[in-house]
Amino acid sequence: MPDLSLAQFETPALLLDEQRMERNMERMRSHLQRLGVSFRPHVKTSKSIDVTRRLLPQGPGPITVSTLHEADFFAGHGFTDILYAVCIAPNKLAHAAALQDRGVRLTLILDNMETARVLAAERERSGRVWPVLIEIDSDGHRSGIEPGAAELLELGRFLEAAGIPVHGVLTHAGSSYDCASTEAIRAMARQERDAVVHAADRLRAAGSACPVVSVGSTPTATFADDLTGVTEVRAGVFVFFDLVMAGINVCRVEDIALSVLGTVIGHRADKGWTLVDAGWMAMSRDRGTSGQAVDQGYGLVCDLDGRPIADLIMVGANQEHGIIAHRSGRIEGALHLPVGTQVRILPNHACSTAAQYQQYLVVGAGGTVTATWPRFNGWSA
Amino acid sequence: MPDLSLAQFETPALLLDEQRMERNMERMRSHLQRLGVSFRPHVKTSKSIDVTRRLLPQGPGPITVSTLHEADFFAGHGFTDILYAVCIAPNKLAHAAALQDRGVRLTLILDNMETARVLAAERERSGRVWPVLIEIDSDGHRSGIEPGAAELLELGRFLEAAGIPVHGVLTHAGSSYDCASTEAIRAMARQERDAVVHAADRLRAAGSACPVVSVGSTPTATFADDLTGVTEVRAGVFVFFDLVMAGINVCRVEDIALSVLGTVIGHRADKGWTLVDAGWMAMSRDRGTSGQAVDQGYGLVCDLDGRPIADLIMVGANQEHGIIAHRSGRIEGALHLPVGTQVRILPNHACSTAAQYQQYLVVGAGGTVTATWPRFNGWSA
Repeated sequence: MPDLSLAQFETPALLLDEQRMERNMERMRSHLQRLGVSFRPHVKTSKSIDVTRRLLPQGPGPITVSTLHEADFFAGHGFTDILYAVCIAPNKLAHAAALQDRGVRLTLILDNMETARVLAAERERSGRVWPVLIEIDSDGHRSGIEPGAAELLELGRFLEAAGIPVHGVLTHAGSSYDCASTEAIRAMARQERDAVVHAADRLRAAGSACPVVSVGSTPTATFADDLTGVTEVRAGVFVFFDLVMAGINVCRVEDIALSVLGTVIGHRADKGWTLVDAGWMAMSRDRGTSGQAVDQGYGLVCDLDGRPIADLIMVGANQEHGIIAHRSGRIEGALHLPVGTQVRILPNHACSTAAQYQQYLVVGAGGTVTATWPRFNGWSA
Repeated sequence: MPDLSLAQFETPALLLDEQRMERNMERMRSHLQRLGVSFRPHVKTSKSIDVTRRLLPQGPGPITVSTLHEADFFAGHGFTDILYAVCIAPNKLAHAAALQDRGVRLTLILDNMETARVLAAERERSGRVWPVLIEIDSDGHRSGIEPGAAELLELGRFLEAAGIPVHGVLTHAGSSYDCASTEAIRAMARQERDAVVHAADRLRAAGSACPVVSVGSTPTATFADDLTGVTEVRAGVFVFFDLVMAGINVCRVEDIALSVLGTVIGHRADKGWTLVDAGWMAMSRDRGTSGQAVDQGYGLVCDLDGRPIADLIMVGANQEHGIIAHRSGRIEGALHLPVGTQVRILPNHACSTAAQYQQYLVVGAGGTVTATWPRFNGWSA
């Protein structure tokens, strides 16, 4: 397509700053290379073949998915090494089998005996076995078995006896999103590594081969300084970054590659409000910065070059209306953005905002739209 | 399609209880008929031709949309009387013109002189005029001109002089969502009506014909007892209802027609947690009940018949993980839902949860899935 100025697009629209994205990707790739660990990026953030090709310029490599629909899509683009990083539900086994029949090496995860029995019954019934990782709880925030728990070895023994070799262990230190300092994130990265390496050691001592030791969250992946014993890292949101990540200093505001293009449609001068045609449907309902030191409302307002304007944030949102105001709430001397002015609004959370769209408008170095990249959503085609 | 049991579906999936939906529709239709006012339903909640056909069994009638993409879609299904109820942005005029050229009577709204000048310039340039409504602020929650403001008549005079007749006035009492009692909602309905009728009277006295007086929000539409002077009512979320509406007694929990089907994938018995494969991507990030008397977390957990289970709610959510626990946080005696158990989770906000999906699984009277109805999202085809 010919390069198009942003003024030619109807709003709201989702913009992807290509240069920022490339820098974010390069930073993570080279950091993990220095640490000597494999990279299995999480494609749940972008759900885009174009973004993933930029991230893996050598061609299809190992990836992590959050849905089997993602697995289907990437399998269709030649990806064959796919980790589905949510504990498998019994009603997804037929789908997982269909992926295997297409030639995908699909790795499943589990954290309990009930699911192990389902997999054992499936092997008994159909002879089918998937590589499995046992999910380890490294920070108490969600699922997984504690690394020192007796249940871990019990589960490992049951799987091996059922003819399902334990292919490894996996953890996700989601609590790193709540860390208040870089030092706290570094400590969390060590805790994440120690938990999963300890679990792998126990399983190996009990006779499992357990070749894979998988960790990953964007904060811990960014600040980890020693991943001895870990074999692969998963991370997703780093490709775009967002205000939540900037709020815990995992990136700078100027690294955020994703923004929503909105247009001024009116004002309430008596309240210091500027109304835009981007509401919560355009930004998502994610208020991830509400618990951080700096609450960014529904998003941080920037000019078309992506630079914050006069400390304006989206203080309120209806379905298709955003209310923009000065962060302090002050009314006097508020900047008047005329009706028709376009703004770029940085999102709290890249995963949730991007999910509101079917495409990215790729903004190149010249500030024009150089390409349109489709993305997909949902759980089925 | 043959009727299918819920057990045959992969999760998460969006369920629509047909009987509940039909009851909700009938209740609103007959209420507005009693009040002697036209109905212009808002299709932004369902974004579905099938739902809208059930709502308007006589065939295409007047509708309200929140995006021009909705207008395109419904125009393609024979709808010709469409109100786009967000103040028009200059970059959408070409799109609005294309809709007019397809034979749609597209009504636009505005609330300021800057936009009026854009429309006047467009008329000057192309001769094109749309019917316009002036948005009135009846409750201070968003956009609109105050009904008694001098600017209202100034705007009306400018439009008439520019050859753009003022077709009417419109307001949306969005603050009704925050009303604590039915009496407060009734009072808000009177305030909404009074504001917009007053504005219409002033414009008429100044020489505008102003035939349309449009109000609407599901709470005020439900409890209004006198709409004298109002010509049409808009409302959208009543077709499905949700926990936010139940929280202010606009409906009962057993009226909520929309739910998310999820599956148990694990437990953390030490914390009283049940993990399901429906997280915030399945429920949306909407936490609309967080400020209500009863906070429902990310959703209220029901059995497959749609009846709440043991006061379980979704207390936390990651992208594809939901954490279910007892509302009180108690751990002892927590109900054990085995891995593989399916649950139906009622959403906080129907508009935001439905937007996470591309289709509704329609659940008929027998508790089986009798049809799949597509829905659309986004701002362009």
